[in-house]
Amino acid sequence: MRLRNKPWAEEFIGSHPEVIIPNPEEYIGNWQRIFGNDNPVHIEVGTGKGQFVTGMALANPEINYIGIELYTSVIVVALEKVIEANTPPNLRLLKVNGADLDKYFKKGDVSRVYLNFSDPWPKTRHAKRRLTHEGFLKLYESILIDNGEIHFKTDNRGLFEYSLVSMSEYGMLLKYVSLDLHVNMPKDNIMTEYEEKFSAKGQPIYRLESAFKTKK
Amino acid sequence: MRLRNKPWAEEFIGSHPEVIIPNPEEYIGNWQRIFGNDNPVHIEVGTGKGQFVTGMALANPEINYIGIELYTSVIVVALEKVIEANTPPNLRLLKVNGADLDKYFKKGDVSRVYLNFSDPWPKTRHAKRRLTHEGFLKLYESILIDNGEIHFKTDNRGLFEYSLVSMSEYGMLLKYVSLDLHVNMPKDNIMTEYEEKFSAKGQPIYRLESAFKTKK
Repeated sequence: MRLRNKPWAEEFIGSHPEVIIPNPEEYIGNWQRIFGNDNPVHIEVGTGKGQFVTGMALANPEINYIGIELYTSVIVVALEKVIEANTPPNLRLLKVNGADLDKYFKKGDVSRVYLNFSDPWPKTRHAKRRLTHEGFLKLYESILIDNGEIHFKTDNRGLFEYSLVSMSEYGMLLKYVSLDLHVNMPKDNIMTEYEEKFSAKGQPIYRLESAFKTKK
Repeated sequence: MRLRNKPWAEEFIGSHPEVIIPNPEEYIGNWQRIFGNDNPVHIEVGTGKGQFVTGMALANPEINYIGIELYTSVIVVALEKVIEANTPPNLRLLKVNGADLDKYFKKGDVSRVYLNFSDPWPKTRHAKRRLTHEGFLKLYESILIDNGEIHFKTDNRGLFEYSLVSMSEYGMLLKYVSLDLHVNMPKDNIMTEYEEKFSAKGQPIYRLESAFKTKK
């Protein structure tokens, strides 16, 4: 998602290092230094305007959240949202590329990966860019704890179908599936900006939880 | 599915042993005796009124099909359909309980299991009756070839969600998923009676193909 250019954005980001960590590679293997505790770390890859990760951080103070978003014009909106929420101590943002996760996290640093309304990249030749492509699954596995989980939701049918097969082929265990999340809305569901928009139109929201299996 | 009682049905069934095999337990491990060839055997568990299995037999003469249906009042409709189709030599029906498959087939007798619009048994206390419950998956595995497949379609969202998780937990590989089959209708899709009715209402049809993994 790209919003219109915001010339003040870089300056705003630079002036809030307590939210958007300027040197995240320094914390690899040592994220408890940032958070001041040993709580599990959950990351959202492609955090967009930040409503989900901010809502989760406020709802679950015993979990540390990191929202990852590459685009300046989007992450500034998330930054504003975090500040409006009084900068929860268990929440940070990273302005980095999701394809580089292993520069910032090592095996076991992360307990859960959230993917919400990721770009579907519908053309077959772009399949490698889908955040549930084998290449990304391998990347997530390389930073997650044993049996670490991916929680994924989307309104995009094609991406969801692809992701079910991709995760199964990778050897992951499917633990939960909903093919119309809002019919029996879980009480703890935090909606993203996209989710509010799409579900208002009556389109089904797909959701799954899957886990990597311990290699024997 | 139960139709109204048909007193002539038992007699009609008994007079067509060339379609509804009267003594199927005699062919365990030896189905080529029935079909007169070594072609793969695909079975449909819960064949209902028989439109699917008859259509498949006509479309794929190099495959042997066996439709399995317990209820007299339903299987007679399938029998009529088979006779109307001039009794394809690669098609038989069995009037037996799907829970007893291993009385009629031994390991390797069957190459593929079709499940179409199976009873969803929505109550949790009836979960064991769902045809994709672990108990049934174990049964199918015990009669299928190595890497044998299940092809499953349904309009029932709850049953499909349950089945994805059940198959994954069983260790099966998900090879194909469609969450709205009729949007990009496969050319070779043979519709069941239910499928025609439900898809005419615009409801999505869910479909998957999954395979048992070779035990190491």
